[in-house]
Amino acid sequence: MPIFDKELPDLEAYKPEREEQPDFDSFWTATLDEARQHPVDARFEPVDALLSTVDVADVTYRGFGGDEIRGWFVTPHGADGPLPCVVEYIGYGGGRGLPHQWLLHASAGRAHFVMDTRGQRGGDTPDRDPYPTTPSYPGFMTMGVESPETYYYRRLMTDAVRAIDAARTHPLVDPAKIVVTGGSQGGGLALAAGGLASDVVGVISDVPFLTHYRRAVDVADDGPYPEIKWYLRDRRGRVEETFKTLSYFDGVNFAARCAGSGLISVGLLDNVCPPSTVYAAYHHYAGPKELRVWEYNKHEGGANYQQAEALRFLKDLLG
Amino acid sequence: MPIFDKELPDLEAYKPEREEQPDFDSFWTATLDEARQHPVDARFEPVDALLSTVDVADVTYRGFGGDEIRGWFVTPHGADGPLPCVVEYIGYGGGRGLPHQWLLHASAGRAHFVMDTRGQRGGDTPDRDPYPTTPSYPGFMTMGVESPETYYYRRLMTDAVRAIDAARTHPLVDPAKIVVTGGSQGGGLALAAGGLASDVVGVISDVPFLTHYRRAVDVADDGPYPEIKWYLRDRRGRVEETFKTLSYFDGVNFAARCAGSGLISVGLLDNVCPPSTVYAAYHHYAGPKELRVWEYNKHEGGANYQQAEALRFLKDLLG
Amino acid sequence: MPIFDKELPDLEAYKPEREEQPDFDSFWTATLDEARQHPVDARFEPVDALLSTVDVADVTYRGFGGDEIRGWFVTPHGADGPLPCVVEYIGYGGGRGLPHQWLLHASAGRAHFVMDTRGQRGGDTPDRDPYPTTPSYPGFMTMGVESPETYYYRRLMTDAVRAIDAARTHPLVDPAKIVVTGGSQGGGLALAAGGLASDVVGVISDVPFLTHYRRAVDVADDGPYPEIKWYLRDRRGRVEETFKTLSYFDGVNFAARCAGSGLISVGLLDNVCPPSTVYAAYHHYAGPKELRVWEYNKHEGGANYQQAEALRFLKDLLG
Amino acid sequence: MPIFDKELPDLEAYKPEREEQPDFDSFWTATLDEARQHPVDARFEPVDALLSTVDVADVTYRGFGGDEIRGWFVTPHGADGPLPCVVEYIGYGGGRGLPHQWLLHASAGRAHFVMDTRGQRGGDTPDRDPYPTTPSYPGFMTMGVESPETYYYRRLMTDAVRAIDAARTHPLVDPAKIVVTGGSQGGGLALAAGGLASDVVGVISDVPFLTHYRRAVDVADDGPYPEIKWYLRDRRGRVEETFKTLSYFDGVNFAARCAGSGLISVGLLDNVCPPSTVYAAYHHYAGPKELRVWEYNKHEGGANYQQAEALRFLKDLLG
Amino acid sequence: MPIFDKELPDLEAYKPEREEQPDFDSFWTATLDEARQHPVDARFEPVDALLSTVDVADVTYRGFGGDEIRGWFVTPHGADGPLPCVVEYIGYGGGRGLPHQWLLHASAGRAHFVMDTRGQRGGDTPDRDPYPTTPSYPGFMTMGVESPETYYYRRLMTDAVRAIDAARTHPLVDPAKIVVTGGSQGGGLALAAGGLASDVVGVISDVPFLTHYRRAVDVADDGPYPEIKWYLRDRRGRVEETFKTLSYFDGVNFAARCAGSGLISVGLLDNVCPPSTVYAAYHHYAGPKELRVWEYNKHEGGANYQQAEALRFLKDLLG
Amino acid sequence: MPIFDKELPDLEAYKPEREEQPDFDSFWTATLDEARQHPVDARFEPVDALLSTVDVADVTYRGFGGDEIRGWFVTPHGADGPLPCVVEYIGYGGGRGLPHQWLLHASAGRAHFVMDTRGQRGGDTPDRDPYPTTPSYPGFMTMGVESPETYYYRRLMTDAVRAIDAARTHPLVDPAKIVVTGGSQGGGLALAAGGLASDVVGVISDVPFLTHYRRAVDVADDGPYPEIKWYLRDRRGRVEETFKTLSYFDGVNFAARCAGSGLISVGLLDNVCPPSTVYAAYHHYAGPKELRVWEYNKHEGGANYQQAEALRFLKDLLG
Repeated sequence: MPIFDKELPDLEAYKPEREEQPDFDSFWTATLDEARQHPVDARFEPVDALLSTVDVADVTYRGFGGDEIRGWFVTPHGADGPLPCVVEYIGYGGGRGLPHQWLLHASAGRAHFVMDTRGQRGGDTPDRDPYPTTPSYPGFMTMGVESPETYYYRRLMTDAVRAIDAARTHPLVDPAKIVVTGGSQGGGLALAAGGLASDVVGVISDVPFLTHYRRAVDVADDGPYPEIKWYLRDRRGRVEETFKTLSYFDGVNFAARCAGSGLISVGLLDNVCPPSTVYAAYHHYAGPKELRVWEYNKHEGGANYQQAEALRFLKDLLG
Repeated sequence: MPIFDKELPDLEAYKPEREEQPDFDSFWTATLDEARQHPVDARFEPVDALLSTVDVADVTYRGFGGDEIRGWFVTPHGADGPLPCVVEYIGYGGGRGLPHQWLLHASAGRAHFVMDTRGQRGGDTPDRDPYPTTPSYPGFMTMGVESPETYYYRRLMTDAVRAIDAARTHPLVDPAKIVVTGGSQGGGLALAAGGLASDVVGVISDVPFLTHYRRAVDVADDGPYPEIKWYLRDRRGRVEETFKTLSYFDGVNFAARCAGSGLISVGLLDNVCPPSTVYAAYHHYAGPKELRVWEYNKHEGGANYQQAEALRFLKDLLG
Repeated sequence: MPIFDKELPDLEAYKPEREEQPDFDSFWTATLDEARQHPVDARFEPVDALLSTVDVADVTYRGFGGDEIRGWFVTPHGADGPLPCVVEYIGYGGGRGLPHQWLLHASAGRAHFVMDTRGQRGGDTPDRDPYPTTPSYPGFMTMGVESPETYYYRRLMTDAVRAIDAARTHPLVDPAKIVVTGGSQGGGLALAAGGLASDVVGVISDVPFLTHYRRAVDVADDGPYPEIKWYLRDRRGRVEETFKTLSYFDGVNFAARCAGSGLISVGLLDNVCPPSTVYAAYHHYAGPKELRVWEYNKHEGGANYQQAEALRFLKDLLG
Repeated sequence: MPIFDKELPDLEAYKPEREEQPDFDSFWTATLDEARQHPVDARFEPVDALLSTVDVADVTYRGFGGDEIRGWFVTPHGADGPLPCVVEYIGYGGGRGLPHQWLLHASAGRAHFVMDTRGQRGGDTPDRDPYPTTPSYPGFMTMGVESPETYYYRRLMTDAVRAIDAARTHPLVDPAKIVVTGGSQGGGLALAAGGLASDVVGVISDVPFLTHYRRAVDVADDGPYPEIKWYLRDRRGRVEETFKTLSYFDGVNFAARCAGSGLISVGLLDNVCPPSTVYAAYHHYAGPKELRVWEYNKHEGGANYQQAEALRFLKDLLG
Repeated sequence: MPIFDKELPDLEAYKPEREEQPDFDSFWTATLDEARQHPVDARFEPVDALLSTVDVADVTYRGFGGDEIRGWFVTPHGADGPLPCVVEYIGYGGGRGLPHQWLLHASAGRAHFVMDTRGQRGGDTPDRDPYPTTPSYPGFMTMGVESPETYYYRRLMTDAVRAIDAARTHPLVDPAKIVVTGGSQGGGLALAAGGLASDVVGVISDVPFLTHYRRAVDVADDGPYPEIKWYLRDRRGRVEETFKTLSYFDGVNFAARCAGSGLISVGLLDNVCPPSTVYAAYHHYAGPKELRVWEYNKHEGGANYQQAEALRFLKDLLG
Repeated sequence: MPIFDKELPDLEAYKPEREEQPDFDSFWTATLDEARQHPVDARFEPVDALLSTVDVADVTYRGFGGDEIRGWFVTPHGADGPLPCVVEYIGYGGGRGLPHQWLLHASAGRAHFVMDTRGQRGGDTPDRDPYPTTPSYPGFMTMGVESPETYYYRRLMTDAVRAIDAARTHPLVDPAKIVVTGGSQGGGLALAAGGLASDVVGVISDVPFLTHYRRAVDVADDGPYPEIKWYLRDRRGRVEETFKTLSYFDGVNFAARCAGSGLISVGLLDNVCPPSTVYAAYHHYAGPKELRVWEYNKHEGGANYQQAEALRFLKDLLG
């Protein structure tokens, strides 16, 4: 995998025009209003995960369309104060898995709310889809892409915003200290949630996916972006309509609405979420921000070293 | 690709026990009864496909759950007699495409009814799914596999039976002379339709898919069967339950219920629909039957030569 | 497969200098004169292909060197008027196959003459080669490339011109209404035939091969063009001599001699016949012309959608 | 990846003869005696890993040849009793990484000692090699394989035994409650340590590597075992001598010496550590034992589900 | 590449029935008689290859059909006695190349006659083919395979026998001391020449190709054998006819006619010329023989170590 | 493999700034001084390689750190005068192998000294490493790369210079007529030896490796350069330090110190040692020089044709 995207100096200057429809904000306001007509109804059932330094709860709350969304809520054992809360979203194809996978943030003394991903493997949340399932390329990138209303990520991004609402209902959570986080798809959701819930104080978005689709489709040759290309290969003639739909779900547009402190990371050899697409989002990010560049890494980015960055960033931000 | 399945003499003797639940027939009777509570409501709209030797109609009828299913109906231009009708199903991921792709059977003087595939690419029929979409491996092999009631192929196989019903409503069609046909997924659907609509006079099933799942998962290393393996990789502990669901949709069990004349084909180097899975279906096929073996072919099987076989078979069967 | 050739705006402006030897026209005049010293001697033997809306004949005629070339001739059943005739050439490695593969144009009311490809798989025409077979890379791209006289495509392109001559001898064919067509190698042959038989009224060339060799070798990484690179890898020192030979068979040069109406198609992600090589031919095409761009397609181009374009184009052109 | 190793019933009966030299025990007694002439000199330096529910120490102790070996020691914050201790070894190519990667066992209330891997990537421990480095295939499988004395794994397995000695020197550790664990290479080291330190009470060996080499080389087609094949490809004529060396480091032989309770896992489609090699070790395992079979998994085995099994196993064993 | 052919004990017992037509000998007698109607007309032109310890001549002689075949003839500088002569044939796709590639045997004090390969890359000998070139899979395995008379290897094997005749005309060559040699295709040609010219005193055949075709096609998954499978994939229905043609060119049948001392080598992991096909030839070899087994090698076999074996074998045989 | 590096006109103008530390020369002076404190102690043991036109000796001499280095010394049989001597270095992963592999230069009347490669496969020379082996990516590119003192190539390049010293001790060698040569890694070592032993009269460096590392890592996608990328992927944060170490071993810097006549070759499609890295070295080469460009070749470059070039170059240079 030799260098395949722009050279570093060009990346550092890369701030493309945003593709954004005039009704972007009204679309999302309407979408969230509709979701909030259902009470969030967050329930936290204690789970015995055979752990002793942390407490675990099995979470259910209501996301898009009032659908039941699952999650885990992990806190330091016996905590009683209001805690800052890290709300985490998960990478493409994954799910909430098992509680002992999510020890990092509670071990650092914070509440940790992990949202399951509807319909994706490795989780427990079905995607209750009230719409006809039009032909799409296997995978989620083009599920319902024929309109913003029916697109899969409309549902998932709404779930992501409602996860914040749900977390804030828990008595241990300090509602003023929410940070959203995630890598890849989770990083794209963190940008979306950070842009739509502009009162979160921090956004950690590692090697984010779901940004700057048009370039991503030209450059990425692994991971889910090519699903769009394959879809357009079959569905000849829907190019502009498709990119128009995608623009409502573009991290570049969400970044421009984020007010919290941002920590974004990028792998310069990432052929799944190419660096130019990440730089585009970073340069449009509206809040205070820092970028962590991993020079010779692909989509793994900083991996555990990036986690150390996140712990440091959270400590600086939240104490 | 060296030989990877059984040797030819072993294939010729291979008739494994069927995995079949006691309520197999009642499950399907109930399923079809339910579908037939919706009137089939077949509509045939003439289409100008810029062709002159054949007439084309755009078909809509009601399949599983009363959902609207699309298709093409192609007949020799100006035909007026009752014609034998070939009902065709399509391979995995495909769809009805455009009318001029379907000239073979009408050019041979028969009516040709091509069923679109709900939810798959290349077609125009959405999969209106009233059930929650539980996490599945991208693709259709495991969509709803947690129970026979929710499995994707329950809907698609019901559509296939209803396509016969729909074809029979057309005045040009001789309802006593229906032959079902298809290759790969289409071949699996032909076996299903032939077994569930036992009054069809012929079943042409080329390199059929959707048969003898348990062995298929062990042997196939390309095509859709591995989706089952990947699903079981994530969903540890659901092995028996999954194969139980699949048994309701197994071509081996449908073949044992087919009464029409059968023409089945197999590629001895087919690593998508391995020969042992096809021989298993062939050996259980209940009606008069012939097998066309393509010795050094993979999943392409006989391709255009198999089409010539089909024309010959149809002429022998229908005149 | 990310974008690997020029960006769209650069493609739209790409009209490279032609590499053309001064004796290009005299070379081809001499070649065709020599071929025409053999009577074309077209014979049309009726074949029972089990079809009823079309009539099929097994064609034999004399091509380059008087060699016997095979083909199919398909017409609407019982046609009696002079019909426009579509002369079709076939993609690399293929052959005339079986008659029922060729139903499209006769079903649209035209005569259809399908030329077999000498020496290639899937056909019935040997390449009677009176020259020593010098070492070449397996495949046809470098067979006899040491001189224009001995190059394989000299023989095949001459066959292509003679196929038009042969078609015109049939009483059902209107000799003033010949259109040549084909995809990939067939598209390259269509350009060649259209340039060398400038009285054909139409040229349909889909994702054409055999154009702008020098760039093709630099850019294509799949399909037959790399055979040239592999040959030059073994035959060090023959670079310029080889490209000089190829220039006599370059679709760019033929396009500049085409007078009929042209319909050319291109896939912007085609790594077999890269878009820059197709745009080069298109921009040099001398007759009235249109270009059909398939934005996210590889070498499959428009596939069945391109066929629909062709039917529309033929109707506009021929009525 | 279709089934490539023995079928399940054959695996369940597979207990091959051990390849074991008569001086196996004396070789290891001498090796460990020599290592123990260096004081273990375990030092535990507190580290601020920005975590609050657990305490972390950076460990240094003396392994083979008195070389300094690194590790992490993680305990529940503020623990004061004697705790059971899980000693963990790491997979091929990895290293101790960063402390926050190792939260599982301390979060379950136990001490966790993580041994770094000398010379492998991702860690901080060099392989101080006092011997000439004879030509080997890149990687560790054949480094010094010309004799048992010089083989890389002699040093690493000795380190693994000394890690137990080191852990026992910590005041928080209950020396009677040591469990060794690891996956892949770590699982092979756990078997080695469990066989050489027969007073450990438990051995958790997931998808173990370093067992039954001769068959492994015939069957594995991914991962490090093929390094042996590649070495023998270059070093023609050293086949028997090489397998003799490897026999001193074979998990089958160590398993036969394990007295603690064993939990072994296997993936039936694992082409890195093929199931027959794991069953061979399991069937020779001398202590009480259980096997966890992951039917459709490759080398990932049970992954997080296997961790849940381990927590359950540890609770049963240690309370 | 795990073990894919028979296990070693089965290989050591593997002596399949020969597939041999009754007119095998008369076919070859007629073929060679016909070739010998052309005088061999060997010419040896001195070449200045900038070498001093050996003398080089550029050879031309007449092979099959009297065609001019090229070669190199290399001898120790200033030799004057009658020398034993090693006649060498070359692997698939190669050719005689340049003289300084062929220093081994002359440096050991023998005459070395290297035959170029007609029509293949890397050489200088065209394949003057008087027959129509029927469609074949690119490559040589199926060129003219529709009959023994037209098959490519009839020409090449005749060239190989005539190379011996040509070598014997040189005054430096002791005609009673000819050894034929080669690897892969060259090894197959050595068996052919050794069987057809039964007065050669030695046959060195390394990892021979062109033996036991039917099994080779089932087992080989790299190299040229799959060309036969690909051909049969296109040319459905020619299976038995094709294997009948190939039987006239099968090293198993030639081996049964070899009287000279044989040295054969095999790589047990060779997926180009699988071990069972080599053992089949070895077990039918009629003369005194030895087999050199390279246990963990693929098609490279013994490489330079096998050359050392050859030097040793030649010294034992020839002094 | 389409064109992936700069276009030819850009290559012909490409002379990047050298990355060279101020103490480059003093580092090497100190390194060589230290090595020369050990007597070179070259021993030449006659070997019977079953050859008669050349004599072979098994060489041992002392290289870096006084370590014993092996080699072959091949001379025309019975030579007695002082001969020019070609000192040859070997490609990555290889070794001195067997004597009969090295016949070219002695057959051309020169002495030939072949240096084995310490620690690499295919040879007989261990890498006696007195330093701790810090974690590196498998392979040699990053072994000890944490400092110039510990880097593997410091030892190997010193061996290369000492090989010249050793050759000069042989009575048959004319010490004023040393030419260093090699391909790939051997070509990199030839540049190093030519730059550090500036009294050699010729440097033949084919498709050289070990030059212009920073660009090589960006462009090469096969061969050993990517080991550096993989190392930096794991060892985040060591980018500049690593390239600083590598600069002491960069062929660009050695080329600038070469005074002998240079023959350098390059393959324009070489993705192992990309053309821009070779042009960089060529343009900095200080002595008289010529470049041999192989236009359509990858890393094989000119292969046997390049050997012919070398024989011609040596004759011109040495007579």
